[in-house]
Formats: sequence, C-alpha cells, structure tokens
Amino acid sequence: MEILEKTIAEIRPPDGASSQAAQKRLDSLTKPPGSLGRLEEIACRLAGITGKPRPGVARKVIYTLAADHGVAAEGVSAYPQAVTPQMVGNFLAGGAAINVLARHAGARVVVADFGVATESAKHSALAVRRIGAGTRNMLREPAMTRAQARQAVEEGIRLVEDADLAGTGDMGIANTTAASAITAAITGRSAEEVTGRGTGIDDAGLRRKVSVVEGALKLHRPNAADGLDVLSKVGGFEIGGLAGVILGCAAKRIPIVLDGFISTSAALIAATLAPGAKECLFAGHRSVERGHVASLAWLGLKPLLELDLRLGEGTGAALAMHLVEAACRIRDEMATFEDAGVSGKK
Amino acid sequence: MEILEKTIAEIRPPDGASSQAAQKRLDSLTKPPGSLGRLEEIACRLAGITGKPRPGVARKVIYTLAADHGVAAEGVSAYPQAVTPQMVGNFLAGGAAINVLARHAGARVVVADFGVATESAKHSALAVRRIGAGTRNMLREPAMTRAQARQAVEEGIRLVEDADLAGTGDMGIANTTAASAITAAITGRSAEEVTGRGTGIDDAGLRRKVSVVEGALKLHRPNAADGLDVLSKVGGFEIGGLAGVILGCAAKRIPIVLDGFISTSAALIAATLAPGAKECLFAGHRSVERGHVASLAWLGLKPLLELDLRLGEGTGAALAMHLVEAACRIRDEMATFEDAGVSGKK
Repeated sequence: MEILEKTIAEIRPPDGASSQAAQKRLDSLTKPPGSLGRLEEIACRLAGITGKPRPGVARKVIYTLAADHGVAAEGVSAYPQAVTPQMVGNFLAGGAAINVLARHAGARVVVADFGVATESAKHSALAVRRIGAGTRNMLREPAMTRAQARQAVEEGIRLVEDADLAGTGDMGIANTTAASAITAAITGRSAEEVTGRGTGIDDAGLRRKVSVVEGALKLHRPNAADGLDVLSKVGGFEIGGLAGVILGCAAKRIPIVLDGFISTSAALIAATLAPGAKECLFAGHRSVERGHVASLAWLGLKPLLELDLRLGEGTGAALAMHLVEAACRIRDEMATFEDAGVSGKK
Repeated sequence: MEILEKTIAEIRPPDGASSQAAQKRLDSLTKPPGSLGRLEEIACRLAGITGKPRPGVARKVIYTLAADHGVAAEGVSAYPQAVTPQMVGNFLAGGAAINVLARHAGARVVVADFGVATESAKHSALAVRRIGAGTRNMLREPAMTRAQARQAVEEGIRLVEDADLAGTGDMGIANTTAASAITAAITGRSAEEVTGRGTGIDDAGLRRKVSVVEGALKLHRPNAADGLDVLSKVGGFEIGGLAGVILGCAAKRIPIVLDGFISTSAALIAATLAPGAKECLFAGHRSVERGHVASLAWLGLKPLLELDLRLGEGTGAALAMHLVEAACRIRDEMATFEDAGVSGKK
C-alpha cells in the first residue's frame, strides 16, 4: 500500500469516552456549566481527537509551505512572483509575520519549499520538497500531473513530525486563484462567489481573476469527489502538501488549526480523500477572502477568530493556538467546586 | 475639585500623530498593506490612546471587582448569594478561571471587595473598598445613595495603578440584573431586549428577571444622561468601581480591555460621565448575554473575540490581551520591505 492509502486507513473517528471525560472535568470546575463557551468545546474536541482526556499542547508546530503558480502569468496577483522566494528568505530569517506570531504562540515554524519557481539557496532550516519549479498555468493546461498531485500530498504526509498541536500556513503568489478554483470545484459554488481580492487587486483585476477561475474550471471539469483530480487540474504544490500535512496529522491524532482560505482549500482536498480528517480540524479564523465562508461551511467548521486577516503564512492559526492552549489550561488549572468550597446551583 | 471631576478633566482625545506614525510603520512591514486587519487597528489605536507611536504592554493588570446585589432576593440568579464571597476566596487562592487566563496572558489580577454582603477574612492580596454590605433591592428602593455611587466610582479611580494595559472584570450574584437595568436606562432599549439568562436561569426565571428590570426602571426613572443617577438607582458597587477604573485609566492614558456585559455596563456609566473615555476602550469579546450587543453598539465598539463566553471575572478581557500583545509584537518585530529585500506591489 502506498503512503497515502496507508495514512488514510489509519485515520480513526474521535474517541467519545475521552471527550465525555473532558466534559465531566469541565463541569466540576468553579464556573456555571458551559459558561466558557467555545473554550470548553475546544477542550472536549481535543480529547476526542487525541483519545486522551487531558492532552497537552506543549509542542506546537506550524507548517508554512511555499510554491509558485503558473497562473500568475494571467495577472491575478497584485505582487510579482519574485515575492515568493523573497518571503521564504524572510521566513528563514525570522522577520515575517508568521515568525512573530509563532514566537508569541510558542510554536515552531517548519518552512518548506514545495516548488517555488526560483530555487532558494540551501539553508539548514528549509525543508526542500520541490515537486516542480511552480505549477503550470491552469487556464491553459492542468496545473500538474496526477503523479505530481500524489507526490505533493505524500511529501506533506512525510513532513509531519510528532507534536501536540499543528497549524497550517502558505506562501505563493497567485495561490488564492488556485484556492478559489478548488473551493468552487469541491463546494459547487460559482467562481464569482468564491473569488476575492487576495493580497489586494483592484476591480479590473478581480474581474480578470473570476474569469480565469471560470475558464480553468470549464476547461478541466475537475471531479469534485476526487481530491487528487481537483488538485492536479487547478491546485498548487503547497496546497497539496498542506492536504498531506492534514492527513498525516489526522492519522497521528494530532489536532490541526487551519489558517485561512488557502489552508482551508487544502482541507477540502484532504476531506475528499479521507472524510474522517475533518474531525481533527479547528478553523483558526475567518479570512476576509470571500470564498472562505463557503469552504468553512462545507467542512462544518466555525472559525475561532474573525480579525479581518488576509495574509496567510499561518498567521491566523498561530493566533488561534493561544485559545487552544487557554482551553487546556482552564481544564487543568482551575479549582473544582469541591476543592474551593464554592456552592453549586440552587 | 473632587477626584471624580479632576479625573474627568484629565481625559484627552487620542493623539492623531502617534496613531499615524504607527500606521506608517505597519505599512513598511513585509505584508500587503492592511492584511493583518484588526491587529493593525489595535496597534494604531494603542498609539493614539497612549500618545506614543510604539507603546509596550509588558505590565498588564486585570481589575476584578466583587459586590453583592439586594435584587438577588427577587430570585433572578441561578446561584445563591453565598457564591460571591466564595468566589472572592477562589480568586485569592488562584483557582478561578480569571486566575488561569490572567496567568496565560501574563497579567496580574487585582481583586477588590466593593461590597460583598459577607465580609471576607483579611488577605494581603484583597483590596478592601467596601461601599456597603451589598446594594439594596432596586425593585423596592434605590440600589444605593448618590453619595455611595460617587464613592464607588472614586474608589475605582483610586484603585488604578500604573500599567501598560488594563482589563476589567466582575463578580457578584445577580449583577447581570443590574447591568441589564443600566443598559436599558442608558441605551433606551427595552428591558426584554437587554435581559438574558446570566449564569443560567430557566424560562420562568428569565420572565421574572425581565419584569424585575422593568419594575425597577418604572419605579426610579433614572436619568440616562447622568451616570451617577443611573448607578445609584439600578447599579451595583462593583459596577461603579469599574466605571471608576475606566475613568482612572483613561485619565492616565492606559488602554482598557473590557470584559463582557457587566464591564460594558460600567463603561456606559463612565462614558455618560466622560464621553472621551470611550476612545480608550477595546471590547475584549461579545458575551452570550443578549444585552451586550446593545451596550457595545451604543459605545461604538466591535468585539475582538466571540467565543460564547458568559462567565465574567475578566475572562474575555484576559483572552483578548493576547491579541493586543500580538499587535505590538507585529509592529516591533517584523522586518520591513527594505530590510528583508522583498518587492512591493507591481
């Protein structure tokens, strides 16, 4: 069996007993039942995912995967393609937003090149998993071969390291175009409904971007039930890699905090390959990018934060990790009614 | 001049130059302009409030004020009044939710007794500022005298210590009833629109609570333009104290993160006394308590978090402090386009 099929076969449903044990603990603490809202929901879901009543989150990792997109040639981004390798350099130097927010969250950042057009100089902290020198232009031909799609996902699976909590992130000029096409293909929404301004294109740019997404979908007619087909026709190497990270974490029972629109499009691919992977996901935030609402709804996820972010890199995931850790600390550090001698309900 | 009038006179409008300097710095960093959304808004507002382009948030304090409410006799809470002093003990022992979340935020908790019915044993960490042994039952008579209302606000002002960021929090059985009455009185909404289930009363309890709020407002007809009148007739000692904390912080140019419904009702009182105090406020979260939407709208505040919390104590403020600190770290620690050699927009 290939690593992809093996990984999918390892994904288990959440453990109800652990989740109930977590709820019981929460109900014994000195607060009205349920009054910590979504923090309590997080603590219960963490227990279900990990199969432990009180999992910790000491080891946090954010996977920030970079690649380029042939569709950038269609003028769908406000920034030149040169920015992708420049930002990889910035990630490695520790000066990007994700570095700052990961430090604030106490998370390690794993930076991986899944196919930036210009190869970066060697760097001890860069994981090189190049599937190609950027995808092809999806408006003219499939973004990648089916073999490359599988390879991207499998390299993502192999990238997963042992941790208590994982986050996803991305970098790739023009990758909101790929994410919009994936989101339209899998959720069945129109290109217009799921295509936004990315890093900040103007009205004319947005009209062009919508027509590029429409054109690519019309040309390739991806099979919505087959994640590898969608990925190969309109996806990206970093998006395939993130789908693999999600599957790999799900198989290892590591909870995953998704970042924004790109990461969530990777989750759509992953969920098409293994529906059970959805159970391991937390939506870190809701992005400004308009298609994000559609992909979150399809996955059944309610975002933890809504801060009008639209940067990617894993920034929203890093910020949400603080809430996940807060949920664990509440569960572990609060006094019970009994210990504190506090009266319960009348 | 009394301390209240002196404090009000010291409140200054935000400093536009510092705020613009912060925005200029944010726009030089390696990210599309505005792509960090509300984190950028926070960084600019912090600069305006403090009058410094790059204020820090190293010293964080959360003021958790406790008091009892005579209106508890009307059966408006799911918990007995004994819980107020029991929870004060829990705060002092470090076992309550606010202790856990304040530690997680790196904030100190100042616990103050503004008028719990049963006086607590002496404790070095308890600030004793008792205005009385709980308020009177607002359904029968004014909750406190006008002199007590002023005293509560002034003790709150005196409680403010030097810090970079302040949070507000509350404890007091039946205090959502007082907060609902204040919110209705000042925003002009009906009792039904602003009265919710508090710590978790049932349908019959909710109907009783709405009629208590209606009855108290009809009996006292508080003057919506006079915060001390509203506070004395339908308020609470801890709510008055928090209004004072807000005014005291605003006068010292210390940004304030509000917790939920009770804290926001204190902000209504403060804003009635000094409209400029609104400029120093961040809404930490939106509570489940239904009236919170009305008070936030009246203050013109958009909450940072929506996590279905309904605990009070300052828990939502503590969680939101992480975002405020994230905004400062982004502003200070990210590389600029120039430093990192990253290309700008096409």
